[in-house]
Amino acid sequence: MTEVRMERMSWVEYRRRIDAAEPVVFLPCGSLEQHGPHLPLGVDALLSTAVACEAARRTGGIVAPALSYGYKSQPRCGGGQHFPGTTSLDGDHLSQLARDVIREFARHGVRKLALIDGHYENQWFLIEGIDLALRDLGHDCGLRVLRTEYWDFCTEDVLREVSPDGFPGFALEHAAVIETSLMLHFHPELVRPDLIPDDDAANFPPYDLYPPETERVPASGVLSSARGATAAKGEHLAEVVCSGLADAVRVAFDPP
Amino acid sequence: MTEVRMERMSWVEYRRRIDAAEPVVFLPCGSLEQHGPHLPLGVDALLSTAVACEAARRTGGIVAPALSYGYKSQPRCGGGQHFPGTTSLDGDHLSQLARDVIREFARHGVRKLALIDGHYENQWFLIEGIDLALRDLGHDCGLRVLRTEYWDFCTEDVLREVSPDGFPGFALEHAAVIETSLMLHFHPELVRPDLIPDDDAANFPPYDLYPPETERVPASGVLSSARGATAAKGEHLAEVVCSGLADAVRVAFDPP
Amino acid sequence: MTEVRMERMSWVEYRRRIDAAEPVVFLPCGSLEQHGPHLPLGVDALLSTAVACEAARRTGGIVAPALSYGYKSQPRCGGGQHFPGTTSLDGDHLSQLARDVIREFARHGVRKLALIDGHYENQWFLIEGIDLALRDLGHDCGLRVLRTEYWDFCTEDVLREVSPDGFPGFALEHAAVIETSLMLHFHPELVRPDLIPDDDAANFPPYDLYPPETERVPASGVLSSARGATAAKGEHLAEVVCSGLADAVRVAFDPP
Amino acid sequence: MTEVRMERMSWVEYRRRIDAAEPVVFLPCGSLEQHGPHLPLGVDALLSTAVACEAARRTGGIVAPALSYGYKSQPRCGGGQHFPGTTSLDGDHLSQLARDVIREFARHGVRKLALIDGHYENQWFLIEGIDLALRDLGHDCGLRVLRTEYWDFCTEDVLREVSPDGFPGFALEHAAVIETSLMLHFHPELVRPDLIPDDDAANFPPYDLYPPETERVPASGVLSSARGATAAKGEHLAEVVCSGLADAVRVAFDPP
Amino acid sequence: MTEVRMERMSWVEYRRRIDAAEPVVFLPCGSLEQHGPHLPLGVDALLSTAVACEAARRTGGIVAPALSYGYKSQPRCGGGQHFPGTTSLDGDHLSQLARDVIREFARHGVRKLALIDGHYENQWFLIEGIDLALRDLGHDCGLRVLRTEYWDFCTEDVLREVSPDGFPGFALEHAAVIETSLMLHFHPELVRPDLIPDDDAANFPPYDLYPPETERVPASGVLSSARGATAAKGEHLAEVVCSGLADAVRVAFDPP
Amino acid sequence: MTEVRMERMSWVEYRRRIDAAEPVVFLPCGSLEQHGPHLPLGVDALLSTAVACEAARRTGGIVAPALSYGYKSQPRCGGGQHFPGTTSLDGDHLSQLARDVIREFARHGVRKLALIDGHYENQWFLIEGIDLALRDLGHDCGLRVLRTEYWDFCTEDVLREVSPDGFPGFALEHAAVIETSLMLHFHPELVRPDLIPDDDAANFPPYDLYPPETERVPASGVLSSARGATAAKGEHLAEVVCSGLADAVRVAFDPP
Repeated sequence: MTEVRMERMSWVEYRRRIDAAEPVVFLPCGSLEQHGPHLPLGVDALLSTAVACEAARRTGGIVAPALSYGYKSQPRCGGGQHFPGTTSLDGDHLSQLARDVIREFARHGVRKLALIDGHYENQWFLIEGIDLALRDLGHDCGLRVLRTEYWDFCTEDVLREVSPDGFPGFALEHAAVIETSLMLHFHPELVRPDLIPDDDAANFPPYDLYPPETERVPASGVLSSARGATAAKGEHLAEVVCSGLADAVRVAFDPP
Repeated sequence: MTEVRMERMSWVEYRRRIDAAEPVVFLPCGSLEQHGPHLPLGVDALLSTAVACEAARRTGGIVAPALSYGYKSQPRCGGGQHFPGTTSLDGDHLSQLARDVIREFARHGVRKLALIDGHYENQWFLIEGIDLALRDLGHDCGLRVLRTEYWDFCTEDVLREVSPDGFPGFALEHAAVIETSLMLHFHPELVRPDLIPDDDAANFPPYDLYPPETERVPASGVLSSARGATAAKGEHLAEVVCSGLADAVRVAFDPP
Repeated sequence: MTEVRMERMSWVEYRRRIDAAEPVVFLPCGSLEQHGPHLPLGVDALLSTAVACEAARRTGGIVAPALSYGYKSQPRCGGGQHFPGTTSLDGDHLSQLARDVIREFARHGVRKLALIDGHYENQWFLIEGIDLALRDLGHDCGLRVLRTEYWDFCTEDVLREVSPDGFPGFALEHAAVIETSLMLHFHPELVRPDLIPDDDAANFPPYDLYPPETERVPASGVLSSARGATAAKGEHLAEVVCSGLADAVRVAFDPP
Repeated sequence: MTEVRMERMSWVEYRRRIDAAEPVVFLPCGSLEQHGPHLPLGVDALLSTAVACEAARRTGGIVAPALSYGYKSQPRCGGGQHFPGTTSLDGDHLSQLARDVIREFARHGVRKLALIDGHYENQWFLIEGIDLALRDLGHDCGLRVLRTEYWDFCTEDVLREVSPDGFPGFALEHAAVIETSLMLHFHPELVRPDLIPDDDAANFPPYDLYPPETERVPASGVLSSARGATAAKGEHLAEVVCSGLADAVRVAFDPP
Repeated sequence: MTEVRMERMSWVEYRRRIDAAEPVVFLPCGSLEQHGPHLPLGVDALLSTAVACEAARRTGGIVAPALSYGYKSQPRCGGGQHFPGTTSLDGDHLSQLARDVIREFARHGVRKLALIDGHYENQWFLIEGIDLALRDLGHDCGLRVLRTEYWDFCTEDVLREVSPDGFPGFALEHAAVIETSLMLHFHPELVRPDLIPDDDAANFPPYDLYPPETERVPASGVLSSARGATAAKGEHLAEVVCSGLADAVRVAFDPP
Repeated sequence: MTEVRMERMSWVEYRRRIDAAEPVVFLPCGSLEQHGPHLPLGVDALLSTAVACEAARRTGGIVAPALSYGYKSQPRCGGGQHFPGTTSLDGDHLSQLARDVIREFARHGVRKLALIDGHYENQWFLIEGIDLALRDLGHDCGLRVLRTEYWDFCTEDVLREVSPDGFPGFALEHAAVIETSLMLHFHPELVRPDLIPDDDAANFPPYDLYPPETERVPASGVLSSARGATAAKGEHLAEVVCSGLADAVRVAFDPP
C-alpha cells in the first residue's frame, strides 16, 4: 500500500509526488482533551488523522502530521478546561500555527490543501489561520484550502442509524456514540467499553458563563450517552465520512 | 425613564449605580456587515444594543457602547468578505478589544458582565477575549461574565411562528426573517421592505473553501428568505428574547 | 436630508455612493472616559461623530461608526485611569483596530479617508495604525488618509472668544469650556450645567510620574474651568471646526 | 507493558498517575524537515519521541504528543528552508506553543516536565517558551522544567565509536551517521540505506548569509556522511542516550 | 569623577550602588533620525544621554544605555520617514522594549527610574511601555517611573533668550536653535555650523496626510531656523534643563 | 580618519556614502549583562562595536548604533538572569527590533548589511529578525545580510595561543580570557585586572533546568578563568577577528 503520511516520506519522495500529480495535502487538526473514562485524550487527532488517511488513500493524497494540540475546551462541547489532561492553546497561537504551516505548503508547490478538523473548538481559529495565510500569500497564489469538521459528512440516514433515539447535535456529541464508534473501528485497542459511563446527557442554558459552571458538566466528561456505540456503527460512519470527504475534495479542487 | 446607556451617563452617575446595586453591565457586540439591500450595514450592533437596552431596563442594568466592528464575515453565515461595506477585524484584534474592555469593567467594580453578541462570527473570538481577561484578572477576581448570541433565547414556539415553512438554522438566518422582523420592530425607519429580494435560500456543502466560492452566496447577500418578516413578528421575537435574557441574567448572577 | 451614517445605509447604497462619487469616508475616534460630573462618558465619540457628520453633509461624505473605546486616559489631559467609567484599550490594540478598519475601507474602493479624533490620547496610536495599514496596502494603493484632532481647526479668534481669560491649551481642555459648549450645542440633553464644578485648573509639573499622582487631578475630573460654556459658544465653535474640516478635506483630497 | 503515551490514556488514567506518583512528563519537540533521500521528513519528532518513550518506561514517566513542527531549518544545521517538505514555524509561534502547553501541564498538577528536543533549530525558542510560561505561572508555582537536545547525552566514547574518522559536531550531524543509525534502530522500515548519498560533508564559513547561499548545502540535504550508519550503532547510541536521560531526570528532579 | 554610566560599571559595582543608596536610574530614549545637514543622526540619543548624565552626577544617579532607535519620524516634528538615515521602530516594538527594560530594573531592586526622552515621537509609546511594565509588576511593586521630554524643563525665560524672535513650539524645534545650541555645548565636534541651512520655518495645516506630503518639509530636514544657535546658549539651556531635571527627581522620588 | 559611526554623521553625509559606494553597514548586537567583577556590564556592545568599527575602517563601511540590550542571559553561557545589572529582552522583542531596523536600512538603499553579534544568547532571535525582515521586503529586494558571532573568526592557532591549557568552548568563554583580553586592548580603562576572580570553570550537565540551578554558576559570574588575559593577546585576537571579518564581507558581498 502506498505510504500516505508525509512524516514517513523522504523529501525527495514528497517532492516527486507534488510535482507529478498535484495531490491534495490533508492537515488533520486535533486536540489533547478529555474524552471520558473510556476514550483516550488523543481522540480528536487520532480520528481526524484516520479519516484523512483513508481519504488520502482514495484520492492519491498526502497526510501531514496532525496539529496535536487545539483550542480551549468549552463546557458545552468538550467538557471544559477544568479536566486534567486537557491541554489547550490560546486562540491566536493556534491561528498562527495554521498560518505558518499553510504558508509552507504553498512554498512546496501544494495547490490543494484540506484541513480536517476533529475538535469542535478549533473551527474559528483555523478559519482565521487560513485567512491570514492567504492574505500573506496574495490572492493569486494558486493555493486553495478546504476546511471541514469531518462529522459534517454524516448524512441524516447515518445519524438516525447511530442515534435511534434522536441525535443530540454535534456539540453534545463529545466522547459519545459517534466518536466512540469511530474509535472502536479505527483504534479498538484504545477503547475501554467497560468504562462507558451512565450519565445523562448534559443540558446547557442558551448562554455560557465564565468562569464556567463546571457542575453542569457530567463528572465523567461525556456530554451525551456513548452506550450505543459499536464497531459496526463506526465502520459505517467511517465509510460515509471518508467517501463523502473523498468526493468533496474531488469536486472542490477539480470541478467538472 | 431611567437612562441605561453608559456613554450617556457621567462617571459620577455610573459610579453611583455600580456602588449602589451591583448592576449587570451589558456589552453589545456587533459588526459592520452587509445585510442585504433592505437592511442597513449596522444591523448587528443595532439589534444587540436594542436587546441589551431592553434587558437592562428590566433588570436595572447598564449598557456599554457596542463593539461596532466584528470578525470577518463568512459566506455560510454572513455572506463573506467580498461585499463592499462589510468592515471586519482580525480575530485576535477582536479578542484583545474584548479583553481590554472586560479588564476595565472589573477595575470599575463591575461583578456581573453580559456580552450580547449579535454577529454569529464573533462568538469564538469573544470567548477567547473573556478567557484572556479572566486569566489576567485572576481566578478570584469576583467578576463573572455571561456570553450569549441573543437569538439563542428564541424558543421553538417562536421559531415555528416566524418560519412557518421550517426554520433554516441560525447560520442561514442572515438578513432573513428574524433580523428583518426585529429591525421592523426596533428600527422601522431603517428597513426597506420594498427591496427584500426573492432569492432562494443559500445552499452550502459540508465544508468551506478558501478563497471563498462567492458564487454560492446569493448576489443580494441574503442567505434565506426575509419575505415573511413583519413588525408584529419582530415584537414577539423581541419580547421572547428580552424576557429570556432578563431571566437569564437574574438566574446566572443571582442564583436562588 | 441625505443619510450620512454608514451603519444606517445598506451595502447596496454604500456601494452606489462609493462608485459614483469617490466620497470622503470619515472615521470618528472617541473614547469612553470621565468628563466631569456634568458631561457623559461618551463625549469624545459623540463630538467627533457630530463634527464628522456635519462635515460629511457639507462634502457629500459618509461617516463610519466611531471607535467607541480609546487609549488610556492620562492625568494631564484626561484625568487618568483611576476614574470609574473610563474604559480604555492598550495602545497596540487601538492601532490594530484602526489598521484593520482602514484596510477594509481600501478594499471597498474608498480613496479618501479622514480620521476625526476626539480623544487626545488616541493620536499616536492612530498614527501607527494608519502607517501599518498603508504598509500592508502598499505605497501605490491609492488610499490617502487624513488625520486630525478636530479642535485643531479652532482659530485663535474663536479660542479668544470662548476663553476670554486666556486659553489653557488643548491638553487641559478636558471637560472644560470647549467640550462643554460643543455638547450644549450638539447634545444639550446630555449636559448637566448645574453640576459644573468650581475647581481651579489643574497644574502639572514638566514630567509625568507612574503610578500617577492622582492627587494632582481635580476630584471632579475637570482639568480647567467649564464655567463659561454656552450653547452659543458651542454653535460658533462647531461652525468654525466643521467648516475648517470641510475645507481641509477638499483641499487635501482634491488639490486645485 | 505500561502505556506511556499520554494521547493513548484517558483523562482518568492520566489524573490517577499524576496524583499517585508525581511522574515526569516528557514533551518531545520535533520538526517536519528534509533529512536526505534515505530518511523521512519526520525524523526529529520520531527520534525525540522514541527516546522520550524509552526514558519514560525506565522512570515511570508519561510522554505527551510531540510538537510536530519546529523552527525554520538553517543551512548549517538542517539544510535550509529551500527544500520541499521542510515545514517550519516562526520563532515566536513555536515559543507560544511551548508556553501554552507548559502552562497547561502545570494546571494538571505536573511538577516535573522534560522537553526533549530533536531539532537543533528549536533550542532557543523553546528556552523562551519555558521562560514565558514560568513568568506566567509565578516563581513559586512548583513546576520545574528540564530541557535538552537528546544527543547531548552522547558520551565521547560513543561518538568516537560511531564516527571513527572524527565527529563533525552536532550541527553537521544532520541526516548523518547518528540520526541514520538511530532510525535504523527505532524505525528501520522508514530508512532507505540504498539511497544514502555519497556527498562530502558540507563546509560553512564562520558566518551566515541571508538569503542563504543554497549552493553551499549538498543537493541531497545531508550535511555529513551517513555511510557508516548501522542498526547496531543505533542500538548503542539509543542505550547511551536513554540511560543518560533517565539518570538525568532522576538527578535533576529528585536530587539525593 | 564617579562613573555614572551603567554599561561602564561591573555588576558588582552596580549592585553595590543600588543596595547602598536607592539611586535614580536614568534611561535616555533617543532615535536615529535626520537632524539637518549640520547635526548628526544620533542627536536625540546623544542629548538625552548628556542631560541624563549631568542630572545623574548631581543626584548620585546611574545612566543606563540609551534606547538608540525610536518611533517613526513625523513630518511635523521630525521631518518624516522619507529621509535616508532615519531608522525607526514600529510603535509596539518600542513599547515592548521599554516594558522589558523597566521590568528588569525592577528585578535589580531599582525603585526610582527616570525615562529621559529626547525624541518627540517616542512619548506615547514610552507611556504605554511604562503602563505595561507596571501592570506586569503589580501595583505594589515599589517602582516609580518618571517620564519627561527633557526640553519641557526649559523655562519661558530661557526660551525667550534662545529665540528672541519668538519660540516656534517644540514640535518645530527639530534640528533648530535649541538642539543645535545643546550640541554645540555637549558635542561641538559633531556640529557643522557652516552647513546650517537658510530655509524658512516649516508650515503645517491642522491635520496630517498619509502618505505624507513631503513637499511641506524643508529639503534640509530642518523645521525652523538654527541660525541663532551658539555654544553659550547651549550651556545656558543645559544648565536650566539639567538643574530642573535634578530638582524634579528629588521632588518626585523624595517628596519632603 | 574617516568617521565610520552612523550616529555621528549627518543624513546628508550618510546618503552621500550610500549612494557613492554601496558600503557595508555593520550593526553591532550587544547586551547589558554581568561580565564578572573585572569587566563592565556593557562588554558585548562595546566589543561588537569595536570590532565592527575596525572592520568598517578597513572596508569603507558604516557602523550603526549597537543594539544595547539583548536576549536573556543563560546560566551556561552568560551566568543567568539572577544577576543584578543583567537587563534583557524577550526573544520576540529582540527579533522585532532587528526586523524593523533591517527594513529601514533597506529603505535607505543599503544592499550589504552585517550583523556583528557580541552576545551568544542573541543568535537565534537575530536569525528570526533577519528572516522576518526579508519576508517583509520580498525575495528580490536586493538586500543581503551577513550575520556572525565575531569570535567565530578566531582561528585554531589564536585559540591555542590565548588558552594554552585548552580552549573551553565559546559558551564558557564568558568574561573569560578572550573577552578580557579584547577589553584590555580596546577599553583598558574599563578593566579591573585586580578583581579577576580565581573561580574554577563552571561545569554544566547535558541539560538545562528551569528555574535555573544558580548554584552551578560561579558567584562571580565568570564561567572560565580570565587569569591569562593580556592586552597583547587582545591585540592579536582583535587583528585576527577584524581581518577575518573584513575579508568575509568582501568575499560574501563582492564574490570574485
